Amino acid sequence: MRLAEVAERLGIEEWRIKGALERQSIQQIDNFNPPYLIFRKDVAGVERGTAVFLGEEVTVVRGFPKIMRAFYLEPLVRRHFSSRVAVEEKMNGYNVRVALVEGRVLALTRGGYVCPYTTARLSARRRIGRFLKENPGKVLCGEAVGTRNPYVVHHYPEAGEFGFFAFDIRDAAGNRAMPVLERNRLLEEYGIEHVRFFGIFKKEEATEAVFRVVRELAQEGREGVVIKDPEMRLPPIKYTSSQTNASDLAYAFRFPYEYGRDFFFSRIIREGFQAVEWDEGEAELEERALRLGKSILLPMVESIRRVRDGEVLTEDHVLDFAGEEELEEFLTYLRRQGVSVVVDEVERKDGGVRVVLRRLRRSSTDRIRSVLSGRGE
Amino acid sequence: MRLAEVAERLGIEEWRIKGALERQSIQQIDNFNPPYLIFRKDVAGVERGTAVFLGEEVTVVRGFPKIMRAFYLEPLVRRHFSSRVAVEEKMNGYNVRVALVEGRVLALTRGGYVCPYTTARLSARRRIGRFLKENPGKVLCGEAVGTRNPYVVHHYPEAGEFGFFAFDIRDAAGNRAMPVLERNRLLEEYGIEHVRFFGIFKKEEATEAVFRVVRELAQEGREGVVIKDPEMRLPPIKYTSSQTNASDLAYAFRFPYEYGRDFFFSRIIREGFQAVEWDEGEAELEERALRLGKSILLPMVESIRRVRDGEVLTEDHVLDFAGEEELEEFLTYLRRQGVSVVVDEVERKDGGVRVVLRRLRRSSTDRIRSVLSGRGE
Repeated sequence: MRLAEVAERLGIEEWRIKGALERQSIQQIDNFNPPYLIFRKDVAGVERGTAVFLGEEVTVVRGFPKIMRAFYLEPLVRRHFSSRVAVEEKMNGYNVRVALVEGRVLALTRGGYVCPYTTARLSARRRIGRFLKENPGKVLCGEAVGTRNPYVVHHYPEAGEFGFFAFDIRDAAGNRAMPVLERNRLLEEYGIEHVRFFGIFKKEEATEAVFRVVRELAQEGREGVVIKDPEMRLPPIKYTSSQTNASDLAYAFRFPYEYGRDFFFSRIIREGFQAVEWDEGEAELEERALRLGKSILLPMVESIRRVRDGEVLTEDHVLDFAGEEELEEFLTYLRRQGVSVVVDEVERKDGGVRVVLRRLRRSSTDRIRSVLSGRGE
Repeated sequence: MRLAEVAERLGIEEWRIKGALERQSIQQIDNFNPPYLIFRKDVAGVERGTAVFLGEEVTVVRGFPKIMRAFYLEPLVRRHFSSRVAVEEKMNGYNVRVALVEGRVLALTRGGYVCPYTTARLSARRRIGRFLKENPGKVLCGEAVGTRNPYVVHHYPEAGEFGFFAFDIRDAAGNRAMPVLERNRLLEEYGIEHVRFFGIFKKEEATEAVFRVVRELAQEGREGVVIKDPEMRLPPIKYTSSQTNASDLAYAFRFPYEYGRDFFFSRIIREGFQAVEWDEGEAELEERALRLGKSILLPMVESIRRVRDGEVLTEDHVLDFAGEEELEEFLTYLRRQGVSVVVDEVERKDGGVRVVLRRLRRSSTDRIRSVLSGRGE
């Protein structure tokens, strides 16, 4: 392997990469052309999710940094930012980095894998291809959203079945992000959609503005915001609505034994801080409590009933493929990642294939079944 | 140390005890007369919580076995028990084993420590002393309840400030429990209170009876039941009301960072199974969801507000001591266990001392304070 070249491109020492490969903090993916390395953990300051393609040239796509979440907004904004902040929408989809690798448009998941489904959709978009070719060394980061994807299903009127909304333009190798106004101008020049931009605010006025925006977004069933240094020299902060917490919890409690306990706890604790910061009275607290309680109880009851009635719990996604080959490629990709899926319905039209992909939720099914049969948890 | 003697009394091999002492699975308490060993984990089939007193004789008090909890009752009762089951109340206090050691009445906590507070109260009860003296080798197991204790404060009309309700008579050394009717007769003979006994039911009728009893208990603010093999040859099963889950959650969410995530998760998941087994409709589910949501949200909001207002979170218990010496002994006991307390108010009357013992909840205070100050979680 070309470790010396990889090390040089990343600006870290070769022995660190060797060690990380041995510890499997870096994984090599060989069943792809070109083969690539995935950083499963941070290694010497290079982010988890970084992918390094070993083609004729070495192409680095740095991992997307984890975004800090605000539980209690005002003091965090005050301490963290300098004078002004940009506020833009945080959409509820999955994080995608789109990069040009040996002349091909590839879409990477947060973890650094080339997702064949997302790649097929985004490489068909000429504007994205043109942008990447004319801006070499840049990566387009954005949220893939909509109702037809294998990860996060959420309806956005402007997105339809599959939408992509950019929120960052980064240097592929160095990970520096472009200032937000410059980014917007460039995206608009290429006709690439970006996430809703709510403006730039003085730090002192930002918290009130964010609360107002987040409440409005919540009413439309939308997630929340990301608050950024307009120059992108400081790490961004995300802040979401109670409705989003509730819908995350509702989603996870459909499969209660599949998720880590911390996932639940973190989403629950946010509710407390938001209620205090929003200075809620008795009626508002009761409304929040009911939303929280329902988001936990109802999906759990629904899943227990399904198992009692003999069903196996699955998480279903309707997906469209251009053809059998694209479908097979995607299934192979999922299986290699250890995901158990059943393809349950197939509909063919216009040469394409529409399938319902059912992802088996075995832990929850098995443990609920065990309790229901009197064998204990 | 007299390991050979201890090993013989426990019926296990000496090297196992040696190993457990080295691993600190067994701890020796030297600041007590007589010194004693505490099993902090199960060792070769001897339960966690077992205490072995090294006086003139070796006195073994076996640990109280962990009681299995039913999430979904009917199939568990059907599979687990033979033909009949006894149903009795599970009270909301703390588990105490009372034993005679070298002629003195000692009260042990679930973990196996001699609790000076509980010992002072129970050793003053002549009926208990008489029972233990006339029934050598027996241990009285029961729930200490009421409003004046350092562990679990819950008001029971029949208990007043401090009550003790027996639920098991066990062989101190062998841990075999007496059949329930024989136990009741013997306790009544000595005038020792036992937990409410709801009767013996055919296995097929038990679940319905338990549901009825648990609903009634819930309305009185009482916890639930324990279901036992009348002969005590099979392990018992506990089953509690939704109101109890909610009040456990409310208690724990006052100090959200003090409790393990599993504590929350387990209490939440029970709600789902009970709602399904009780076949609840929309209105009942909504009521349950609201109770669940409030039990999580409101205490958390209250604690966050207290920290915002500059307070330190504490868990307060009002305790009565016969005098300064008894108070000091108890404080020494708590400090040795690493518990941080502040004695905040003192009132003297009739030679006794009444104090408010404030147990500091540092993790929750510190982490909430950190979030509120914008330093992140």
